[in-house]
Amino acid sequence: MKIRNVTSSDYDIISPVINEWWGGRQMAHMLPKVFFVHFNDTSFIMEQKGEIIGFLIGFFSQSDQDVAYIHFVGVHPDYRKQHIGKQLYSAFFNEAEKNGKKFIRALTSPVNKTSIAYHTKSGFAIEQGDKEVDGVSVFTDYDGEGQDRVLFVKDLLN
Amino acid sequence: MKIRNVTSSDYDIISPVINEWWGGRQMAHMLPKVFFVHFNDTSFIMEQKGEIIGFLIGFFSQSDQDVAYIHFVGVHPDYRKQHIGKQLYSAFFNEAEKNGKKFIRALTSPVNKTSIAYHTKSGFAIEQGDKEVDGVSVFTDYDGEGQDRVLFVKDLLN
Repeated sequence: MKIRNVTSSDYDIISPVINEWWGGRQMAHMLPKVFFVHFNDTSFIMEQKGEIIGFLIGFFSQSDQDVAYIHFVGVHPDYRKQHIGKQLYSAFFNEAEKNGKKFIRALTSPVNKTSIAYHTKSGFAIEQGDKEVDGVSVFTDYDGEGQDRVLFVKDLLN
Repeated sequence: MKIRNVTSSDYDIISPVINEWWGGRQMAHMLPKVFFVHFNDTSFIMEQKGEIIGFLIGFFSQSDQDVAYIHFVGVHPDYRKQHIGKQLYSAFFNEAEKNGKKFIRALTSPVNKTSIAYHTKSGFAIEQGDKEVDGVSVFTDYDGEGQDRVLFVKDLLN
């Protein structure tokens, strides 16, 4: 396995498989090519024998110089539980630290229990929202009507 | 009329009206809150009497230090043909120049003739794609299957 930075042509490989990797959820439209073009230095691909088996799309906030943001992470269904996510996160944390960032932010849907468990285990705190869902603090309608979100923040200095 | 920078709470006002401003096209999902949170310095709101009547979401490319990118621009249907887009673009160009950017990039769908005419009139060149649609050069499947795009670039130094 090998980690490298994203290039814009990776979009053509990844976009058609996203819905499949997400178990049929229609997610591809959430990741337009723009993310593969303008955030190469903070976005990573995991490859095995020339095949893409995981990716992380992230960028540095341009509103808050201390913050790096993880937007989208996907791992090929056949390659889960092999710490590929962990290695992609690690590459992103390193890039963020190298650039003097202090906090990593990310978010997920309250239904995505795997993502919530993963972030909690990886040292992310859950931000205080306005309600609780299954014991997790949630921001109601954060991403539009009916689109509640759990917000994560990791302090790189701790 | 007054121009100011975007704040994350503008999302809650703008997101619910996007589909309406786009004449019923389902566009709101193309603009998640993340754009309102992390790109405040390069994104602008036009207000009149406290009401939002236009907005521009843009950012600086993190892959190419010379490039600033315009992602999404919308004007309230009742306020069109009043040069609101022009003023929002102007604010973005100024911010880009102030930060030493050399090129502005943007893209649109080939069906969006208004956008193509607007960018051409505003000094954007159309990039050479792989086919022509109604005399305009287009990149086939640029944003996924069936999602052809026209790519614009403006040279700020010319």
